[in-house]
Amino acid sequence: MKKQQGATIWLTGLSGAGKSTICKFLEAELRSRAYQVEVLDGDMVRQNLSKGLTFSKEDRDENIRRIGFVAHLLTRNNIIVLVAAISPYQAARAEVKARIGDFIEVYVNASLAVCEQRDVKGLYKRARAGEIKHFTGIDDLYESPLAPDVECQTDRETIAESVDKILSKLAELGYIDRRVALITTPS
Amino acid sequence: MKKQQGATIWLTGLSGAGKSTICKFLEAELRSRAYQVEVLDGDMVRQNLSKGLTFSKEDRDENIRRIGFVAHLLTRNNIIVLVAAISPYQAARAEVKARIGDFIEVYVNASLAVCEQRDVKGLYKRARAGEIKHFTGIDDLYESPLAPDVECQTDRETIAESVDKILSKLAELGYIDRRVALITTPS
Repeated sequence: MKKQQGATIWLTGLSGAGKSTICKFLEAELRSRAYQVEVLDGDMVRQNLSKGLTFSKEDRDENIRRIGFVAHLLTRNNIIVLVAAISPYQAARAEVKARIGDFIEVYVNASLAVCEQRDVKGLYKRARAGEIKHFTGIDDLYESPLAPDVECQTDRETIAESVDKILSKLAELGYIDRRVALITTPS
Repeated sequence: MKKQQGATIWLTGLSGAGKSTICKFLEAELRSRAYQVEVLDGDMVRQNLSKGLTFSKEDRDENIRRIGFVAHLLTRNNIIVLVAAISPYQAARAEVKARIGDFIEVYVNASLAVCEQRDVKGLYKRARAGEIKHFTGIDDLYESPLAPDVECQTDRETIAESVDKILSKLAELGYIDRRVALITTPS
């Protein structure tokens, strides 16, 4: 058994952009190829590591730092870590990237209008009604990645296409085996 | 390469009992045998995951839960995790044990008098002077493990003996290979 190389695949984007969905499919794809994968989902992390933190800039940064700390521990133990977190601030993402090293930034990009229309969790509606404060995209900033390793445009591509882009990048960077066929998407 | 089995080796005990020291030697021993090891030290965790938490019972329990969360992620990815944390409350340790499953509780036991005499970090002195509140053993409770898997009596045995006890238990439970000779301590 060859030891795999660890990496953190960091999905950033607005609420509703499709981070968790891509994560789920990417996890399944990698597991089906026998890679060791761990998922750190924003909500799960809030519950387990960041109880009590608010959505102020300072607390958001601390939340991202904690996710980064855990992702780093797993990555240096050769696990492929999938992080799905809004992570709105460029500086916090850069800090985590510098810490981890083996870090692939994936910009899960859908327009605010599309995310708000989807509104899977009903959060945009509540944010618009003023029931939720500091909601990214509504009354809180989202700083788009300047040079993401991968950009998934989920308002104009299929999930399979998004996942395929990420897998291609992982193969290109040598984190997964190129010889394994990538997902075939209908042309 | 055989995939190793993950486990959390949880060292509990008073400040100054020798948890970090045992951890350090145990880590070196396991690494020298090519096991994949990660150390979660109480102080390091406070810094990275639990900034802002106090030493109240509630916050201590939350701190232990966070360490447990991370230890669990690593353990289920086949890493041997060494945790050094005072973790004074029985219920919190039991909760973490139940969550992780592959969990070896090590009671690092030295009398309060001995720990206070060592006072490596000068904390007991400060606690006695009232400069630190909620200090375990002084004005905060330490609940000794009821049935630890290993007990290291660091006030009457060498570090090598303590480490040896833990390695023997790990071998007995099948987490490490019995065929590799354990540390030989002078008889």
